[in-house]
Amino acid sequence: MDGRAIIFCEGCFGNEYGKTAHGLVRHTDRYAVVAVIDSGFAGRDAGEVLDGRKSGVPVIDSLADAPAADYLVIGFAPDGGRLPRSCRQVVIDAMRRGLGIDSGLHEFLSEDAEFAALARRENVAIRDVRRPPPRGRLHFFSGDILTVRAKRVAVLGTDCALGKRTTATLLVRDLRAAGIGAEMIGTGQTSWLQGVRYGIMLDSIVNDFVGGELEHAIVEADRRESPDVIVIEGQASLTHPAGAGGFEILGSGRPQGVVLQHAPGRRTHSGYPEFPIPPLAVHIDTIESLFASRVIAIGLNPEGLDAGAAAKTAAKLEERHGIPVCDPLTEGTDKLVSATTAL
Amino acid sequence: MDGRAIIFCEGCFGNEYGKTAHGLVRHTDRYAVVAVIDSGFAGRDAGEVLDGRKSGVPVIDSLADAPAADYLVIGFAPDGGRLPRSCRQVVIDAMRRGLGIDSGLHEFLSEDAEFAALARRENVAIRDVRRPPPRGRLHFFSGDILTVRAKRVAVLGTDCALGKRTTATLLVRDLRAAGIGAEMIGTGQTSWLQGVRYGIMLDSIVNDFVGGELEHAIVEADRRESPDVIVIEGQASLTHPAGAGGFEILGSGRPQGVVLQHAPGRRTHSGYPEFPIPPLAVHIDTIESLFASRVIAIGLNPEGLDAGAAAKTAAKLEERHGIPVCDPLTEGTDKLVSATTAL
Repeated sequence: MDGRAIIFCEGCFGNEYGKTAHGLVRHTDRYAVVAVIDSGFAGRDAGEVLDGRKSGVPVIDSLADAPAADYLVIGFAPDGGRLPRSCRQVVIDAMRRGLGIDSGLHEFLSEDAEFAALARRENVAIRDVRRPPPRGRLHFFSGDILTVRAKRVAVLGTDCALGKRTTATLLVRDLRAAGIGAEMIGTGQTSWLQGVRYGIMLDSIVNDFVGGELEHAIVEADRRESPDVIVIEGQASLTHPAGAGGFEILGSGRPQGVVLQHAPGRRTHSGYPEFPIPPLAVHIDTIESLFASRVIAIGLNPEGLDAGAAAKTAAKLEERHGIPVCDPLTEGTDKLVSATTAL
Repeated sequence: MDGRAIIFCEGCFGNEYGKTAHGLVRHTDRYAVVAVIDSGFAGRDAGEVLDGRKSGVPVIDSLADAPAADYLVIGFAPDGGRLPRSCRQVVIDAMRRGLGIDSGLHEFLSEDAEFAALARRENVAIRDVRRPPPRGRLHFFSGDILTVRAKRVAVLGTDCALGKRTTATLLVRDLRAAGIGAEMIGTGQTSWLQGVRYGIMLDSIVNDFVGGELEHAIVEADRRESPDVIVIEGQASLTHPAGAGGFEILGSGRPQGVVLQHAPGRRTHSGYPEFPIPPLAVHIDTIESLFASRVIAIGLNPEGLDAGAAAKTAAKLEERHGIPVCDPLTEGTDKLVSATTAL
C-alpha cells in the first residue's frame, strides 16, 4: 500500500465525471482512502452517497477540513482530461501541506512549471499515472495473443461511465473467492489507482500501439500468473463518438467471452445527447458476427429506473437474448461467475 | 511544391510494406519524384512495376546511382514503424549528399542522436511527418461534426493495405473533374507526403484525442473550403487485430456514406495469417446497423485474381449486395462518383 489518500472530486462526486473517485471509495489496494472532497455532499458518508451503504469515508468541504494524509488524488475525469483552472489552488495547497499528487488527467501536472517548482520546493512527488511508456518501449501487435492459455472475458459497455470497471473488479474478486484463478487487465487510470497489477492506459497510448500494448499486458499476466481466467476492463464503448475502445479490445484482446454492461434507461451517449446509443441487440450481433466472441451476460446499470422497472427490464432482456442479466452492484456477480466458468 | 525527391523503398517496392512509395509514384503534389531505390527492380520503370504503366520514374539500385534531388523520403512502413538497422547507412549517405530526410516512421529520426548531429553538420532538415501536435494543442471530440454542411464519404476497407487511400485520392480528383467541390481528409503520412492539405496522422495521435482531431480536421475543411463532399481516407480496418481505425472514423467522422475497399482474394489480415477477415456482408451490416451510414459502393482490389475472375467476382458482389462494384485503378471511378452524388 502506498499510503493515506484524500480524493479530490469537487462538483463531480456521484455523477459520471466522478468515476475515478467512485472506484476508489468502493475499493483500492493502493491507498487507505481517508476523505473525499466535494462541498455539495460535505458531512455525509461517501459510500452512502454513492451506493446507499456506509463506507466510513467522510465527504468533506475542502482541504482545510481534511485528516492527515500522504496523497491528494485527482478523482474526476473531465472530457479532454485537463485540470480546470478553478482546481489549481487545491493542488497547490495540498503540496504545501506535504501531500504528493496522483493524477490520471491527460494534462501532465508534473509538466506544469508552477506545480513542478512547488513540488521540488516542498519535496513531494507528482505522479501522472496516465503517462504512457516512451515511444521506443511500446509494443506493436504481434499475434502472441493466440498463445495465451487463460480464457479471456472482456467487460465492454454500450456507453462510457456505466460500470464496466466495477463489474470487472467484482467479477475478478468473486471468481477468486470461488477458487478460480482470475487476473484483471486494467485499461484506465482508475484501475492503476486501485492497485491492479497488469494493464495499460488504453486512451493515453499512441493509437498504433494500443493493440500491441494490450496484447503485451495480457500475455504478461498469463505467463507470470497462469490464471484460469483473464478479465479485461473495457473502455469507452463500440459507438461512442469520442472513442472506439470496445473494438480495440475485441480486435487485439480477442476475448472468447464478453460481459456487456448496459444502462437501458440511457438513450444517448454520455456527454453527447445528440448521439443515440444503438440497440443492445445490434451490439450483441456486432460482437458475435465480427469476432469469434460470445456475449455471455449483460451487466445491468439501473440508472433512471426504479427497482421494479429494473427487475422487469432484466427479466425481459434475459428472455429476449437468452443470457443472464444482473446488476452486479446490488445482486452480486453469481450469474457472471457461472457464465464465465461455463464458457 | 517542396522539391525533387528520391523514394527509399529497398525490398518493399510492389509489396504491401511499400505503400508509401506506391502512393508517391502514382501521385504527389509535394514533390517531383525522380527515382525509387529498390535493388530488386533496378533498371525498370516504377509505374510499370506497380501498375503496368510507364511513369517516367526509374527504379535504381542505390543512392550512388541517384539523380540530383532535395529529399530522401522513407517509402516503406514496417509494422511498428521503426527504421531497420540495415537502413541507417542510406539515411546517413543521403544527408552527406545534402538531402533532407522526410520520414513517416513512428520512430522519430530527428531524435536519433547520430542522425540529429549529422543533420546539423550538413545543414539539412529531418522532417518526422508522423509527429503529432503537442498534447496541449490536441482537440477532444466536441460534437461539432454534426454542424458540417458537406456530405461525408469515408473510404474504409476490410483490411490494411488494399487501396483505401488510392481510391479516396482518385474519387476526389474525379469528383472535382465533374465539377463537384470535393476535399480530402488524409489520415496517414502518405497523404501528407502527397500534399493533401487537411488531415491528421490517425495512428500517431494519443488514443483519446483521435476522434477530436479527426472531427477538427473535417470541420476546418468544411468551414474554409465549403466543399460539397468531404472524402475521408480510411485507416486499418474494422477487425484488423492491430487497429480499429475504421470504427474511429465511423464514430467520430459520422460519414453518411462509405465506400468499402475489399480484396476478395485475401482471406486473412495483412501481416497476420492467423486472423481471418470476416465476410464482406458482415462488414456492411455492421456499418449500417451501428451507425447512420450506408455502404454506397465496393472498391475492388483484384489481388490474387486474374482479370476474368475479378470481373466475375465484381458482378457477383454487385448482384448480392445491390451496390456498384469497381476497381478504381483499372476501371476508373465513374461508379463511385455516381454513388457519391446520389447520396
